[in-house]
Amino acid sequence: MTSGQLYLDDLEVGQRFTSASHLIDEAQIKAFAGQFDPQPFHLDDAAANRTLFGGLAASGWHTAAITMRLLVDTGLPLAGGIIGAGAEINWPNAAEQRALGCRACRPGDILTVTSEIEEITPSRSRPDRGMVRVRSETRNQRSEIVQVLTSRLVVPRRMESLKQS
Amino acid sequence: MTSGQLYLDDLEVGQRFTSASHLIDEAQIKAFAGQFDPQPFHLDDAAANRTLFGGLAASGWHTAAITMRLLVDTGLPLAGGIIGAGAEINWPNAAEQRALGCRACRPGDILTVTSEIEEITPSRSRPDRGMVRVRSETRNQRSEIVQVLTSRLVVPRRMESLKQS
Repeated sequence: MTSGQLYLDDLEVGQRFTSASHLIDEAQIKAFAGQFDPQPFHLDDAAANRTLFGGLAASGWHTAAITMRLLVDTGLPLAGGIIGAGAEINWPNAAEQRALGCRACRPGDILTVTSEIEEITPSRSRPDRGMVRVRSETRNQRSEIVQVLTSRLVVPRRMESLKQS
Repeated sequence: MTSGQLYLDDLEVGQRFTSASHLIDEAQIKAFAGQFDPQPFHLDDAAANRTLFGGLAASGWHTAAITMRLLVDTGLPLAGGIIGAGAEINWPNAAEQRALGCRACRPGDILTVTSEIEEITPSRSRPDRGMVRVRSETRNQRSEIVQVLTSRLVVPRRMESLKQS
């Protein structure tokens, strides 16, 4: 884990961060699915061809977990770490994929996460922290979106800010 | 995987389903965190005591993954499997925990998922399917909520319905 250095006071709306990348392969997809999402379209190539996915695809929760790893390691250098209170997560479906240039996450995809600070809200009751809304787009090597995650994160304030308030 | 049998036509708003249960232990929490969410409060007991969590807690994405496994195996018997287009996920924070009787997911927790059908929307453009909104509460052995997940799922229609339309 890379320790983050940015406190609530250091963030501004519109600020952007880009993670390193992660190659997801068939073995990872099947291992995650076997443990957490054992459905044919995540486990079996031939069976997956006969489903909505039209081929082996990663579990959405696997894409989410890899996204988290990328954010923790390199994607979002927050003081105190990445502590989520909640999130909205979207995995584009086939129709949306056509419209938006998105697709399911496939074996061989190289994933990168780009995050943007959307909202910063200091806590009224707790002067030592605040909430930050962050939009994180996970894209493959062709810049197609495989997941959009909008998270509500708890971020600490700098001690100096506390003394002033 | 248990194959589901319920098509869009078989579902109704207010219908409820309860999964089997899963015991989450310290080894599982640390293994998942080591792979996907390597932060001190998910990996190290002593370090976790000094954080917001006040002790070792599972990654929210681990709770989400276990919830998915419980839904796939026993919690939501949908024809075609559980195919999510998106979801809203909430992990109660400390303040909400006090107010709502919720808490972080801890070693030794026995998790169960209760789901309720909230909305059913047949597709206008695709007569063979529809969208269903499902609220899934993941609770521990004391019935405290550790996660609330509201999913948008793609569910197929029965062939007979297709012939009629």
